[in-house]
Amino acid sequence: MTDFAATKAMFDLPEGMIYLDGNSLGPLPKATKDRVSAMIEDEWGKMLITGWNKAGWMQQPGAIGDRIGRLIGAEPGHVMMGDTLSIKVYQAVASALEMTPDRRVVLSDNGNFPSDLYIVQGLLKSLGEDYELRVVNPEDVADNITDEIAVLMLTEVDYRTGRKHDMKALTELAQAQGVVTVWDLAHSAGALPVDLAGCNADFAVGCTYKYLNSGPGGPAFIYVAPRHVDSARPALSGWLGHEAPFAFDLDYRPGNGIERMRVGTPPMIQLAALGASMDIWDQVDMQALRARSIALCDRFISGVEASCPALTLASPRDGTARGSQVSFAFEHGYAAMQALIARGVIGDFRAPTTMRFGFTPLYIDEGDVDGAVAIIADVMNNQLWDKPEYKIRAAVT
Amino acid sequence: MTDFAATKAMFDLPEGMIYLDGNSLGPLPKATKDRVSAMIEDEWGKMLITGWNKAGWMQQPGAIGDRIGRLIGAEPGHVMMGDTLSIKVYQAVASALEMTPDRRVVLSDNGNFPSDLYIVQGLLKSLGEDYELRVVNPEDVADNITDEIAVLMLTEVDYRTGRKHDMKALTELAQAQGVVTVWDLAHSAGALPVDLAGCNADFAVGCTYKYLNSGPGGPAFIYVAPRHVDSARPALSGWLGHEAPFAFDLDYRPGNGIERMRVGTPPMIQLAALGASMDIWDQVDMQALRARSIALCDRFISGVEASCPALTLASPRDGTARGSQVSFAFEHGYAAMQALIARGVIGDFRAPTTMRFGFTPLYIDEGDVDGAVAIIADVMNNQLWDKPEYKIRAAVT
Repeated sequence: MTDFAATKAMFDLPEGMIYLDGNSLGPLPKATKDRVSAMIEDEWGKMLITGWNKAGWMQQPGAIGDRIGRLIGAEPGHVMMGDTLSIKVYQAVASALEMTPDRRVVLSDNGNFPSDLYIVQGLLKSLGEDYELRVVNPEDVADNITDEIAVLMLTEVDYRTGRKHDMKALTELAQAQGVVTVWDLAHSAGALPVDLAGCNADFAVGCTYKYLNSGPGGPAFIYVAPRHVDSARPALSGWLGHEAPFAFDLDYRPGNGIERMRVGTPPMIQLAALGASMDIWDQVDMQALRARSIALCDRFISGVEASCPALTLASPRDGTARGSQVSFAFEHGYAAMQALIARGVIGDFRAPTTMRFGFTPLYIDEGDVDGAVAIIADVMNNQLWDKPEYKIRAAVT
Repeated sequence: MTDFAATKAMFDLPEGMIYLDGNSLGPLPKATKDRVSAMIEDEWGKMLITGWNKAGWMQQPGAIGDRIGRLIGAEPGHVMMGDTLSIKVYQAVASALEMTPDRRVVLSDNGNFPSDLYIVQGLLKSLGEDYELRVVNPEDVADNITDEIAVLMLTEVDYRTGRKHDMKALTELAQAQGVVTVWDLAHSAGALPVDLAGCNADFAVGCTYKYLNSGPGGPAFIYVAPRHVDSARPALSGWLGHEAPFAFDLDYRPGNGIERMRVGTPPMIQLAALGASMDIWDQVDMQALRARSIALCDRFISGVEASCPALTLASPRDGTARGSQVSFAFEHGYAAMQALIARGVIGDFRAPTTMRFGFTPLYIDEGDVDGAVAIIADVMNNQLWDKPEYKIRAAVT
């Protein structure tokens, strides 16, 4: 059983702040600063180039990948760290498309994070005019899975509402039609138990700076199923994905298994930060986390609905159909969120009307939920959001 | 005039080590650890998600790009940080190829770093079977520039020998044939003055963990010439390269100018480390650096040639035709390099016979050169390399 009071004590949370935005950028684990300093001073500073061997830098992207793999139900040796999520989406979809060479359509939904759609638009434009990205409503995905589709690319949990796709059912439906699946776990990894192997997923990708608390710009990950990993062609065929990088051959030969999904030099400082965070995650039981996440979200929904009639629930009411976040719709949501942030309740806003709150049991507890509800009720019922300064949009929101 | 004794004092170099491998991984600036700690504690820890605005994280990839831009002769606002060098090569070549839609050949040479060839092999395979990567000898590049070539992709300085291409002449030759140029500055940026604008270069890319001392896995950069930057299509069309990332539109529209070459979330911890290093670089006059680099390399060549008859110079003798490194060929080069490393002279080895030594005036001086020469002479003339333990190849060399 995970001790969530103990995990909460492992984070450095600013005094007086209720941080409900860990689904956007996770907070700082207390151990991270010293871990990064030690890596910089004792490894980079003292070992210099020999750190690649002596400190095991070269093996870390795969070793940390396996620790994340436990959270997402991946087989050991099938998750690799590196690059950004956008790059990992590109890799996965490019490889997946080549597995169905006679098909030309990538199916996704408009609840996907736009970046995933952008990156596929760019890829398909490179591949040729006969390729198509077909974007449907989330509830229409199942009906659109036909033998015309090459790749089904979905984000499991909707970044706006927290609505959760049924990964197992959709993967099964897709595979029955010969469709290859790519699952984006940006709002799943560390948010809820994922069972990639059990769902028979083909490819999966995700980031680490949200629920996995690796810090801004932490490296992403990619998963390739055992049955594909030795045949998937890496479109981004980089040096460290070569079978023998230090042979300096002029021709690319893909490395064994997941190694081929490496591209360039891994970001060792960011990986050190991620390593410190994974020390916490290694102690977490994902079923316990899920139960607590649903309880916290339910408590928040009840509290807000009881006290704020102007807010409309925009997330599924059924906890098992949700990720680890709750959204409410409100016409003046942007200003209301600014008023909340000014009062130490940090959520975020997604156009046009979504106020979004993430619940992360590692460091959020019932006291935080109740405190947030009280402040939200104050802001809403006393129209504290109705001030000019809360209506000025920042560049990054 | 740059005070190189002062810059040397800004680095944390292990006692008793002569580090001649800054062309592979630069050493640790003394200011880096505290800078990174401050970023982690005061920005990520205290500002959390608001750091993107409050700490200016979002602007840093372009701001630091401009500081590197000064070293490589780029117009302000035309260099963007992010990803790895392999990814930046992919971006540059993919965009460049679309500028010559009727041509199918990418020309490069076998002195290019293999990863650049690998990544283009992967790209061309995605684009179709009629594309070709043509790899010639470095001295034959000029003769192979014809109107059949779409893109000329070269690394300015050969990673093995330090041989330097004439960027201006080859760019001119290429453009006279309608060829678009992509220059890899991995062994140029921070090694010698580069004049991208003066050479009329089209695209350039480079990394920061070598001469720019950003630490293992520091972010790469891309340059796009002003005449191309608003028309180049980003093949890796990621979220932060969108014209309005926070509008969350479903369709990609490229951002203004170099912004479109952004892909995913920038690695802010690695960028903080790079920022600390750029504080040193901001003080450096590149002409003074070049003069000193040539003087150090010449001193090393004279010293080694006078004392080690078994070593054959593998680099150009003319300093102006070289980067900031010197290589010697020796049949037992691997073992000899291990013997040197065991004695505190850190260079590296590149198969089959190259012993490589980097000279970086920011922290290497005449005393280091003379000290290295003495140890090399001892190892060579007393056959100290001829021991079994020096012949065991490490995974990463």
